Order: sequence, then structure tokens, then C-alpha cells
Amino acid sequence: MAHFLHDFFYPKTVALIGATDKPDKPARAIMENLAHFSGTVFPVNPKYQTLFGLRCYPSIKEIAETIDVAIVALPVTVIEAGFGMLRDKGIDRLIVISSGFAEAGEEGRRLQERLTEQANRHGIRVIGPNALGVFNAENGFNSFFVSEERVLMPEPGRLSIISQSGAVTVILMEAMARNGIGIAKAINYGNRLDVDEADALSYLADDPQTDAAAVYIESVGDGRKFLEAAKRFTARKPLVVWKAGKRELGAGAVASHTATLAGTYALYEAAFRQGGISEAYTFEHLLDGAKVASLMPFRCTGKRLLIMTNGGGMAVAAADQASRDGFILPPVPEEVRKKLKQAFPPFFVLNNPIDITGSGKDEDYYTALKEALPYYDAAVVIALMGTTTVTENSAAMIARVCRELKKPITCCVLQGLRYMEEVERSVQELGIPGFPSPERAVRALTVLRRGPC
Amino acid sequence: MAHFLHDFFYPKTVALIGATDKPDKPARAIMENLAHFSGTVFPVNPKYQTLFGLRCYPSIKEIAETIDVAIVALPVTVIEAGFGMLRDKGIDRLIVISSGFAEAGEEGRRLQERLTEQANRHGIRVIGPNALGVFNAENGFNSFFVSEERVLMPEPGRLSIISQSGAVTVILMEAMARNGIGIAKAINYGNRLDVDEADALSYLADDPQTDAAAVYIESVGDGRKFLEAAKRFTARKPLVVWKAGKRELGAGAVASHTATLAGTYALYEAAFRQGGISEAYTFEHLLDGAKVASLMPFRCTGKRLLIMTNGGGMAVAAADQASRDGFILPPVPEEVRKKLKQAFPPFFVLNNPIDITGSGKDEDYYTALKEALPYYDAAVVIALMGTTTVTENSAAMIARVCRELKKPITCCVLQGLRYMEEVERSVQELGIPGFPSPERAVRALTVLRRGPC
Repeated sequence: MAHFLHDFFYPKTVALIGATDKPDKPARAIMENLAHFSGTVFPVNPKYQTLFGLRCYPSIKEIAETIDVAIVALPVTVIEAGFGMLRDKGIDRLIVISSGFAEAGEEGRRLQERLTEQANRHGIRVIGPNALGVFNAENGFNSFFVSEERVLMPEPGRLSIISQSGAVTVILMEAMARNGIGIAKAINYGNRLDVDEADALSYLADDPQTDAAAVYIESVGDGRKFLEAAKRFTARKPLVVWKAGKRELGAGAVASHTATLAGTYALYEAAFRQGGISEAYTFEHLLDGAKVASLMPFRCTGKRLLIMTNGGGMAVAAADQASRDGFILPPVPEEVRKKLKQAFPPFFVLNNPIDITGSGKDEDYYTALKEALPYYDAAVVIALMGTTTVTENSAAMIARVCRELKKPITCCVLQGLRYMEEVERSVQELGIPGFPSPERAVRALTVLRRGPC
Repeated sequence: MAHFLHDFFYPKTVALIGATDKPDKPARAIMENLAHFSGTVFPVNPKYQTLFGLRCYPSIKEIAETIDVAIVALPVTVIEAGFGMLRDKGIDRLIVISSGFAEAGEEGRRLQERLTEQANRHGIRVIGPNALGVFNAENGFNSFFVSEERVLMPEPGRLSIISQSGAVTVILMEAMARNGIGIAKAINYGNRLDVDEADALSYLADDPQTDAAAVYIESVGDGRKFLEAAKRFTARKPLVVWKAGKRELGAGAVASHTATLAGTYALYEAAFRQGGISEAYTFEHLLDGAKVASLMPFRCTGKRLLIMTNGGGMAVAAADQASRDGFILPPVPEEVRKKLKQAFPPFFVLNNPIDITGSGKDEDYYTALKEALPYYDAAVVIALMGTTTVTENSAAMIARVCRELKKPITCCVLQGLRYMEEVERSVQELGIPGFPSPERAVRALTVLRRGPC
């Protein structure tokens, strides 16, 4: 039997209750976005005959067809009264984008409780309230009240996003779009009246479109359920989770943001380790980790890191970061040094870091990695593009050795701005994640190990 | 009496010994860059009659004029023999860009020792060898063998750069160019035969063009001299230092990069604290810190941080980072809450973080900061540009309150990519440093406190 969330992501018919063409209204942005949906849209609002060229219905009762998913964009006060009508129409998948519930104080909290009770009674599954809902690149369905004019949306891809916060969902999707990382599915469940992060995880664990997931949480609804779902997910694909409100001050900020308890961070850490989750330490680490998880098919099976560069200073920074992140940097084995000494000029430095200096050429990256990387679990390559001997072809060399040896590699491309951007783009197109600092290139690799470091 | 480095930065006449027009040669790039120099250039090379339209001299002896600075771009083996001629010509300021000295093994080390001895005997001050030398935006003089075709150079500005590594110098300058931060002066002293980081610091402490400095070191030549120079510098202006090779693994990488000892990090930490130096923890922190030091005229006089946002999740991340960086987040004082409650809708959250939610408007940033910031030492403002109520005018509001209250503010602008870039650019043009993550906006503020946190 399909997971109940499948119906949310793959409806054939969708009703938007509270549809409008008024600028700046959330339901207007949803209407516009639903133009990309491969299924049928039924706008509902007694004030309109038609909306965006579609027949507009005064009420869901007037729609002859079965409705697979209803999106509710009505004022908070009128939603409760409409539940009976939903049941009569046989609707059992509801996305409530309206806010003004538990996040808005005591009255809202009571309203949300009554809604929960009704949903349970009628067997209606609810995403939200106070949520963006779902986004599915495969069929163009999304309930996000995000204007395409204002926000850049990513191409279809293999990464999925689960987020407690709507704002963070949009920030993540836009950052991925900017980084050229495509998105498969996204879900923002807001106040978590019913559907939660664990439901999303267990559904996406089996989703053939999803190769990896990036998750933002401030708290977890049901710890045991979350851990089980995470285990199922990470048994198959990488899962990067950023838990905000880790520190004392952050936990205080969570309390005033979503009125939930951030919980003891030590408990989360233990659960992440048990669940095989890769923990992101900051917003940027989540972005970088999601990029690596999405692009790189190979995992770190140990802690041995190889650093390679054509300019020393930045390799020192990478080595410092390797220390912080629990990697080790064993020296290049003697037999490899011997081989490379024959292939390279005498002034190349064959320790770890390997430094092919300002005289290093594109193919030297291939030669050195091909010989040395088999003795390591991952490599960070730092390429300074200020010299004339290194060109954009170095990207192909690095990607080739990565494929041949099936070991994860990240890149940091610096210096020579014009070349740098070109090379960073091309390494990424070839499946090697690129970063603008040596520390980020190292730290991003941590998501390819199982559990936090 | 002027500092001896003044002559290096402000020559009237410069000889380039080993000038050439051969593509890919360092001296060719220097010739091209010297076209911007307001003084007179004398190319020296017996193989040419003219170079780039200038008369080329077979030897420095043939030049009638006094030479203020000589740049040497000759093979390492012939430099030693030419020292007598430099003395005879009365040249006492020398930049040796050639490599192949101490960094290249035993023979090079001995050669460098003999050069040191000769320089001392003849009273010649030397920058280098194995160095880019100096860069001065005021008179267009620079000895950097960096091709303008390949590398983006910054506009004239108020930040100066001191770096042990040539590669890092170029990376820093390019990053500043990209961030719209102008450069006053830069110096890369390479093998430190004579001129070192302390000389550079004590000179720039008095340089009226320099408002702040960003420094990259792997080691310090003379600890006492460095500390004294740092104290002089930080008594007047902010100094951000990134010491690479902090951790065990990094220190190992330093040893194989510049054959120097990275030293015990604890010693450096103590010296930084004593010297009033703001320590950068990573490459990105150095970039971010340099930006703040260069743009923001106000300092943090305490640890009390105010966080303000129009979307909760990212404020939680900022609060987490505030914990890591030793800030405290006192709640908004009761009298301020009372005032703001009258000015704002009831659902605005008036704790610390202050959250004006998705309904917050441009002027709300001004109103809240104007009332609350006097009770804090600095503020981080996170603006999510995905809503339609916040526009690019928010930048002017934030900049206005910063000027009026004379307290440091950094910004993190996210979401709504098109608006985001516009707003980040405009806050920066108004003197407020902008960052793409909440954690970086918090961490960058640490450079405005005295000493590391």
C-alpha cells in the first residue's frame, strides 16, 4: 500500500479553497504556480465566476469530480465550520496554509486543538496549518504561496527538502537553485497538526525520485517515530539535518519563534548518531552538505583525508579544518611517493597535503590522485586559478579520477576570478561539489560519513 | 622621520631588473601593471632597446637618474653577483620576486643567507625573496606579478593587506574586489629575508590611507616586535589576523609549505589577546572580518547582542552562533517593549530576537532598532526578502539607525534572490556589511571587539 503522503504529492485533482487574483495574496501566488500542474485545478470562491481562465466554483459541493487534495487559504476563523463539507465531499487530504493557529497564542492553540479533533474524527490527513505544504517537481504540483517573480525556483532534480519553517524552505530551495542543484520534492508542515518530519522522512525513504534529503528542524514531534524513519532513510540514502536552537541562546530563540521546546541538544546528538544522520552545524553547512549529498554518489568509509593543492596556504587551512572535523591526514605512502617522484619535478611536495605548486598542470591532478587516493577515504582538491599552467580542463581530470576510484572528492577553487567561476561551474557539472573556501570543502565532506563527527 | 617602508610604497623612480615582454613571465605582468604607476619606470634588460614604448637599459649603471626602488626578477643564481652594482648605484630599497631561495631546500637556504649578509653590509632593505612585494592604490605603484587579464583587482579603498603567502594575498585582494571593498595598500614579504609582518604593521599603523588591516600569517618572525607593532596598530584601528596552522594537522601542513614552525597556537592566542588583535578562525572569517573592519566605523564595547528579523528560523541560527562567539542576548527592556507594543501589531515578537514577522515593513526596522539598540552593544539584522512588505528601502532604514546610534550593525539578507542581491548591495553601499548566512553576520561582528572571544 502506498504511503498516505503519496496522495498529497501526486493528486490528479486539486481544489484551492479561497482562490483569488488579488495581488499580494498568498492564494494568488498559489493559483499562478498551479499553472504548471499536470492535473486539474478547481478554484473555489463565491466571489468569482472564473479565475485565470478557469471556472471558479462557489463551493466544493458544486464540483462534480472527486477532489484528491484540497488547499485551504481562508481566514482562520471560517476553517472550522467547513470541515463537515470536506467530509461530505469525501476529501481526506488537506493542506492548510492559513496562519493564526498555535503560533498565535492561546485562542489559536485552542482552535488548532479543535481542528485536530475534527480531522481525526473524519479521517482527514492534514499538512499545516501555517505551512507552505508540498512541492513536487515531477508533476508540477505545488501549494507554495511563493511568487515566482520574487523568488528563484530550482530545476527538477534528485534532492528533497523537509522543513519545519516555511521561510527556511524557501531559502533552501532558492540557494539550491542558485547552486544549480535540482529539487525532487519539498515539504513544509508548519504547525504539525498531523503530518510531521517523521512522516515525510519515511515517505521519501521510498521515493524513487529522491536521492538525498536536507532537513531543517527546531524540534521533533515524536522522537521514537523520527528515529525509526531516519534509520529507514539513511539505510538507503544520505540525510543531512540541521537542528537549530542547539545552544542555550538558540533554544531561547526557538521558544519565542514556534512556541516549542528546542529540547536538550545532547539527546538530539545521540539520536542523530543512532539514526545515521549527518548533522549540519550551521545554515551554510546544511547548504554545502545538501550539495555534496545530492551530487556525490560515493561515501566516506573512514577518516583518512587526502589534501591536494597547487598553492600551500589554503591547504594549511584545509588541514586545520580536517582537525576540527575529526579527519586524519596520513602521509602519502612511500611506494606512492617513489612513483610520483619519477613523474613530477623535484620541487613538488609529496606529503599530505600534496602540493604541485604554481608550476602544476591539469594532468598532474589526475596523476597524483590516481596513485595516492586509493590509500585514503576522501580527497579535498584546492585549485588556485591565478597561474597560467592550470586551466578549466583540471575539472575533467578531477572528475575522471573520482569516477575511476569511486571515492568522494570536493573542490575549492580560488584566485583568478573569471577562471575560478568557470572551473567551479564545470567541476560541479561533472559531479564534483565546489566551494569558495577550503574549510567549507572539508566540512561538507562530513555528510558523506555516517553519523556526526 | 618616515618609516623605511614609506620609500617602498612611494618611489618616484623604479627600475625593473629583468624586464621582458615574453608572455607568461612574471616580469611581463609587472611591466604591464607599472603602466598605472604615476612615477617613472626604467626597464633593465640587455636584450631589449625598448619595452612597451619605454627605453630599456642594458644595466642599472646606464640609468642617469636616482633609483628609489629596484624590483629584481632575475634567475636566483645571478642575483648575488649583482649586489655590488646596486650599492654603487646607491639603491637601498630592493624587492626580490625571484623564488628558489630558502623555500627550495638547502642550497637555496645558503644563498638566502649570503644575500642577507650582503644586504646588511650595504644597508639595502629587502622585501622578499619569493614575494609579490608591494601594492599602493594611491600612486598606482605595484610590483605584483599578477596578470590583470586573469585576476580581478580591487578599487582604491581604506583596507590594507599584509600576507606571508603570495597566493593568499591575491585571493584576498580578489575577494575584496568581488565584495566591493577597496584596498589602500598590500604587502607580501615572502621568505622574510629582511622586511617582516611587524615592519608592515608598524608602517601601516601610521598610514593615513589605511583604516584597517587584514593579515595572513603562518608564523611570526620576531614575536616581541610583532606584539609591539600590533599594539601600536590596534590602538588606532582594527586589525584582523588569520593564523593558519592552528591545529595539529594544520601545523604539519605549514612545515611542508614554508619550512617554518607554526608554533604553539596557545602562544599566538595569548599574543593576539595582548595585542588587541581580532582573530579570524577561518579563511571566510578573515574575508568577512576584513569587510566589517573596513566598512563599520563603530566598535562593540560589550557583549550584548540584539537580533532582529522578519522570519524566525534564521534568528535561531544567529542566536546559536551568538552562543558560540561569546555574545549574550539580554531580553528587550520592559520600557522598550511597552513603547514598541503601541507602535506594532500585537503579533510582532518583542523578545530578543525581535521578530516583525512576514508582515513587517521597511520602517519597522528603524522603529524597533531606534528604541532597543541603545540597550545593546551591537545588532544583527536578518531580512528575508520573500515577502512583499519588505523592499530595498529597508537598507536605508538600517543604515540610518546605525549612523544615529553609532552602534555596529551587520546584516544577513536572504530569500527572494533578485531582491536579496539588490538589498545586500545597497546595505553595503550604505556602510552596513551584508552576509549570506546568519552565522557569518554574527561571527563577523567579533572583529569589532578587542581581542579574540
